[in-house]
Amino acid sequence: MQVNVIASVHEARSEELLGRTVIVIDVLRATSTIVTALAQGATAILPVETVQQAKLAQQPGDLLGGERYSKRIAGFDLGNSPLEYQDPAIEGRRIVLTTTNGTRAIQKSSRADFVLAGSLLNAEACARKAADLNRNIAIVCSGTQDEFALEDGLCAGLLVRELERIWGGGCESINDLGLAMHHAYLEAEPQLERVLLASASGKKLTQLGLRADVRFCAQVNAYPLVPMLHGELMR
Amino acid sequence: MQVNVIASVHEARSEELLGRTVIVIDVLRATSTIVTALAQGATAILPVETVQQAKLAQQPGDLLGGERYSKRIAGFDLGNSPLEYQDPAIEGRRIVLTTTNGTRAIQKSSRADFVLAGSLLNAEACARKAADLNRNIAIVCSGTQDEFALEDGLCAGLLVRELERIWGGGCESINDLGLAMHHAYLEAEPQLERVLLASASGKKLTQLGLRADVRFCAQVNAYPLVPMLHGELMR
Repeated sequence: MQVNVIASVHEARSEELLGRTVIVIDVLRATSTIVTALAQGATAILPVETVQQAKLAQQPGDLLGGERYSKRIAGFDLGNSPLEYQDPAIEGRRIVLTTTNGTRAIQKSSRADFVLAGSLLNAEACARKAADLNRNIAIVCSGTQDEFALEDGLCAGLLVRELERIWGGGCESINDLGLAMHHAYLEAEPQLERVLLASASGKKLTQLGLRADVRFCAQVNAYPLVPMLHGELMR
Repeated sequence: MQVNVIASVHEARSEELLGRTVIVIDVLRATSTIVTALAQGATAILPVETVQQAKLAQQPGDLLGGERYSKRIAGFDLGNSPLEYQDPAIEGRRIVLTTTNGTRAIQKSSRADFVLAGSLLNAEACARKAADLNRNIAIVCSGTQDEFALEDGLCAGLLVRELERIWGGGCESINDLGLAMHHAYLEAEPQLERVLLASASGKKLTQLGLRADVRFCAQVNAYPLVPMLHGELMR
């Protein structure tokens, strides 16, 4: 099996994802939010690219969620903070979600055989599911505005570690970025929250008063749940 | 001061390098070779892009060096193995050098204020020189055919560590890739030779019987020398 880590949405070429299992990572915060919402009992997430698409896609009973510039969109029920999705009011509801980087990465992965949402919150379960699906794996770090984001890279490193544990020696090849992130994760692991707070996104969210989001998203393996794309829906 | 690590030549945008000190890294092997050649007493290195340019640029007394597909170019005096450049015959000679990734990265950096050649062999001296030049710093990992290369990333991480040591708290910002590589370097440091041998380039060179090159290039701070671009020449 091959594992390729891709540094940002910008660098993910559709043909590289063809026939693979793609794990989309947006630790701060889209995939952490998707995992949390489903863990809280949301029935599904519909990721869309634009605010307009979100409004058009909304059906009776749906909740609208998402952010622009890290803030809740005017008129939406929810932002992109996983903490908001721990509300019991989420249970049984479908969420239409639009975010700047994560939902774009999910849409760009549509030619893959399988698309999973990965985060630190569900890393171990995600690696196990990806291994079970028996395809070569592409781990797409969503990044921030086409730039590599530290938190996504570290999560990719954790996934590489878990995949190596599952496969033992059966992991034929890991690309150089995957090897680098594996090393980086091992070093950062004992101080993950502090490291995430020092990333570009971590600093920006802290400035916006959203430090609690960063701390929440820094939890490793809090949920055994793996969101997977079925048609247009993640569930 | 700002430090940005850039993942590959492909991603280095000229305007991002403007007004900066650029450190070009191609650990396997161009910048390691340049450092070794100058340490052995070569008078200067003239990096050029094509074989044709190398032949046209050759003046009486010059040696021609370089590789294509990791092998010495037909008719050239030298390949791209740093070990070849430890020959006393190098002393007092100018080397015209063409390689696949490293020399391209040097040429792409021509709009920077200063261009230095960095490698594991001269990392500490290189960081010190870059700090003395008093500009924001871009560290360009040459990579391999537009892909990130592990050995260049780890060397970037070592440079980030050295710059942080020199500046103490004076390092305003390090981009997320720089932070990730710093973590990766710290983890890989005690086993650097083994890690380099497991990289894509390390494996390829080993297959070609050039394992000794990888081991040589994995030495940290063997030379206090920092090649710098003056016009077209590195010396």
